[in-house]
Amino acid sequence: MSGRVAALQPVTLVLGGARSGKSGFAESLVTQAAPSWLYIATGQAWDAEMGERIARHQDRRGDGWTTIEEPLDLASVLKRESRPDRPVLVDCLTLWLTNLMLADKSVDLEVDALLAALPGLAGPMVLVSNEVGLGIVPENAMARAFRDHAGRAHQKIAAIAETVYFVTAGLPLKMKG
Amino acid sequence: MSGRVAALQPVTLVLGGARSGKSGFAESLVTQAAPSWLYIATGQAWDAEMGERIARHQDRRGDGWTTIEEPLDLASVLKRESRPDRPVLVDCLTLWLTNLMLADKSVDLEVDALLAALPGLAGPMVLVSNEVGLGIVPENAMARAFRDHAGRAHQKIAAIAETVYFVTAGLPLKMKG
Amino acid sequence: MSGRVAALQPVTLVLGGARSGKSGFAESLVTQAAPSWLYIATGQAWDAEMGERIARHQDRRGDGWTTIEEPLDLASVLKRESRPDRPVLVDCLTLWLTNLMLADKSVDLEVDALLAALPGLAGPMVLVSNEVGLGIVPENAMARAFRDHAGRAHQKIAAIAETVYFVTAGLPLKMKG
Repeated sequence: MSGRVAALQPVTLVLGGARSGKSGFAESLVTQAAPSWLYIATGQAWDAEMGERIARHQDRRGDGWTTIEEPLDLASVLKRESRPDRPVLVDCLTLWLTNLMLADKSVDLEVDALLAALPGLAGPMVLVSNEVGLGIVPENAMARAFRDHAGRAHQKIAAIAETVYFVTAGLPLKMKG
Repeated sequence: MSGRVAALQPVTLVLGGARSGKSGFAESLVTQAAPSWLYIATGQAWDAEMGERIARHQDRRGDGWTTIEEPLDLASVLKRESRPDRPVLVDCLTLWLTNLMLADKSVDLEVDALLAALPGLAGPMVLVSNEVGLGIVPENAMARAFRDHAGRAHQKIAAIAETVYFVTAGLPLKMKG
Repeated sequence: MSGRVAALQPVTLVLGGARSGKSGFAESLVTQAAPSWLYIATGQAWDAEMGERIARHQDRRGDGWTTIEEPLDLASVLKRESRPDRPVLVDCLTLWLTNLMLADKSVDLEVDALLAALPGLAGPMVLVSNEVGLGIVPENAMARAFRDHAGRAHQKIAAIAETVYFVTAGLPLKMKG
């Protein structure tokens, strides 16, 4: 069975803008690699708009998926749930960073905990995240802080990932690997 | 005559940010393919700033161009005006989506009408659009809705386009084709 | 000695978003090319947040660097300081454009002065700039004007640069050269 996961490297990072097709592309990577998969959703259904998005994501996925919702402690869930025959899709890191900021956690410590966990996991994983740093400097200080956290986290994860994609209009561009 | 248009595929999508040089690049694709061209302008001169932009675009173009302004019904104009020996440049899809939203049209239905029209057109066309999803989540709900519409439209059009470019600083990166 | 700078073309433009790793990548280009380097900082420490960023940048650099702060007259400093054996790193053009706007200078004239100076410089240089045009249209008119200035400056500089990179998550994508 493990041969079917061979095409997927231990750590793949999929970056893209809003509605770029990054999640659909990441799902295709994971589903082509094995017959069953773990989906770790970091999003929380705060409001109707977010609830609708989560529902739309769930509709697109089908059988073979196990879903776990984890807004904060990504490293522990990954360590507990990673298996050689079941690739993991984490969607998405930017919501996780938002959750950490709203919960007054140290984002840097949590990102470091994730980085420490990644190399030792039993099976492959695909991490999805939003690129948010290519617009005008936000006027809101929290948005600027978030943008800084996201950019630094992306750099650190990209440095240890075997494969990095940048997705635009549903089209993946391989940046690494 | 048709041999001169051979280099241009039926559908080309040119994505890029604001002032990325995407329009100038798209114009160069079209003008290299044939001696006369149709420019479909979706922009409307609401205010002085927009009027200035449209004038600047017009200045850059020269003889050989026929211009049609169409803020809303892109599919009908394309079906009526497309000819094998005259490539079409549509600039830009994001303004068209904005116009549809302001006119309270169903953006999804209009995008689907465009998608249905594209494969049957008589001649080649180049569609220009703004990538707007790579900044911080906008605080304004309409801006978020617009960003979602644009991203979804880009994915759908990129899926059927033969060629897709992403332009930065005037430099085209071929994403597909 | 000059052979050690051979790997660096006369003009290299490094574009990227906020926290994209563009400065670190640009520094690596410069430090690999020679044993001593000139850093031209265009930023000014207006407030605590900006002061912190400048300090963080300074920490990362070490011996071998000479630093000059020049918020406005980039062309003159480059002409005066450029030497064949000492590559120059300018970080960053977007702060320089901001400074010009705040000082009520003609941005177009200043960009043209820079463009006129670049081809005649004695040594190689790497220019870093923020890509800011890939988000939603800003509501603030000055932000829109800034975005237009930045995009136009990037196009002009990219046209004469031998090498252009676009950096995301610390990963450089070569757009030209």
